[in-house]
Amino acid sequence: MAQSATHPFDQATALFFDGERFHGETRPEYYNMVGPFGGITAATMLNAAMLHPARLGQPLALTVNFAAPAKVGPFVVDVIVARTNRSTQHFSMSMIQDAEVVTTATAVFGLRRDSWSHVEAVMPDVPTPGDVPRFEAPAPLPWMQWYHVRLIRGSALDDVEDAVTYQWMRDDPPRPLDHAALAALCDTFVPRVYVKLKRPVPIGTVTFTVYFLADPDTIFRQGTNELLGVARATRFHQGYFDQIGEVWSQDGELLATTTQLVYMKT
Amino acid sequence: MAQSATHPFDQATALFFDGERFHGETRPEYYNMVGPFGGITAATMLNAAMLHPARLGQPLALTVNFAAPAKVGPFVVDVIVARTNRSTQHFSMSMIQDAEVVTTATAVFGLRRDSWSHVEAVMPDVPTPGDVPRFEAPAPLPWMQWYHVRLIRGSALDDVEDAVTYQWMRDDPPRPLDHAALAALCDTFVPRVYVKLKRPVPIGTVTFTVYFLADPDTIFRQGTNELLGVARATRFHQGYFDQIGEVWSQDGELLATTTQLVYMKT
Repeated sequence: MAQSATHPFDQATALFFDGERFHGETRPEYYNMVGPFGGITAATMLNAAMLHPARLGQPLALTVNFAAPAKVGPFVVDVIVARTNRSTQHFSMSMIQDAEVVTTATAVFGLRRDSWSHVEAVMPDVPTPGDVPRFEAPAPLPWMQWYHVRLIRGSALDDVEDAVTYQWMRDDPPRPLDHAALAALCDTFVPRVYVKLKRPVPIGTVTFTVYFLADPDTIFRQGTNELLGVARATRFHQGYFDQIGEVWSQDGELLATTTQLVYMKT
Repeated sequence: MAQSATHPFDQATALFFDGERFHGETRPEYYNMVGPFGGITAATMLNAAMLHPARLGQPLALTVNFAAPAKVGPFVVDVIVARTNRSTQHFSMSMIQDAEVVTTATAVFGLRRDSWSHVEAVMPDVPTPGDVPRFEAPAPLPWMQWYHVRLIRGSALDDVEDAVTYQWMRDDPPRPLDHAALAALCDTFVPRVYVKLKRPVPIGTVTFTVYFLADPDTIFRQGTNELLGVARATRFHQGYFDQIGEVWSQDGELLATTTQLVYMKT
């Protein structure tokens, strides 16, 4: 863990708890177009719940609502432990900067027990990571330097007509997987509208959800392996579109599903 | 609106605002197994935001976390207007009963403007409502009396092997569609684990999300039409499974997508 303590991801999601509130700092190296990379904000909100002294269990679900772009500089996160049950725990979080809410979130944590198991979704048949070149964005944004992505299909640059992206992805430099990193990876897909229109337009995620469908041991066991990301859309309409995604391990474990609703100007 | 004011759905989601908090009552006629039907709780949380005097625009997204089953009886809902922007507004809600949080929620509201539009998802090819008999549950729960469902495929009673359900659905008695009713309809699907195992097991939704992908006029224009619900699952594992769904109008408008994470004991 000594190595991961100095990883840029851990620096960007670091929080100091003063016994009442969590204190962190928006960092320019994870910036996107007009605000921080949504994935790093989501990971920071999850981290606040993880670090809460009353926390039990591991994350099951996270929803993050992006109310306004945080500026580079300090922020506080307030965490309310809304309810603690025998096997689940509910958190509500707010990120505040200059006395205004910039992000809200809820998270459900829980204990997992053995049960009947079945994977219903089908992992796409894709080339192995070694057979796909690393994607180099023509005009990379700061946060992209921290992700190693091999775009198998579905970018703004290829001739795919649908809104389906397959990509191998991992933190760069490599960092052992945990729930926060997995949540952030769920937000690394190129916006679906770019894939359809083959050009960038102004966009901004308004809400983002991750369900952790694998048990914690399976998530941690991935280490620094590249993971398969799958993303699609259902509808683009009157200024908004959605994204539905999956994250798979190389050996076919469905680690997480993710959805987001995104503002677009086009 | 005089008619809808007396519909059981409107009675069950009714809230009185005292200038500070919203007051409502859990009603036995919308009860499920060990708590209220999740759809009516979701609709009530959305209604609290709708009725807030500072509310602007119409719902874009709703996430509801079920922390504990509400008992039959009075509750309060606290609504925080976390942020109001030019075109979006963010709400955080808590439902409280006997001084304990039973439900948390967030909602994003917004104004919609014309933009490039495209429906990427494909509406399943299904029989028209008139060609499908009404579904009669063998042991109906109280809330089910308020929904008219024609199960096209995917129940605990048929021989479908996957976890995909298609159903025509509407409020019963008929009630003109709005965002609250649409949110509740998103929770009317039989639990995915019943469809797989062909038997009921103890379950409980822990978190539920709806994205409203059609504009408000299109939603209101549905009136009392039956809508096509589509639900599937991606994974069942260590006590939890997910559901991903879509709601379509008869003329092919994708009205909403929905996800939920559900506890199961099996």
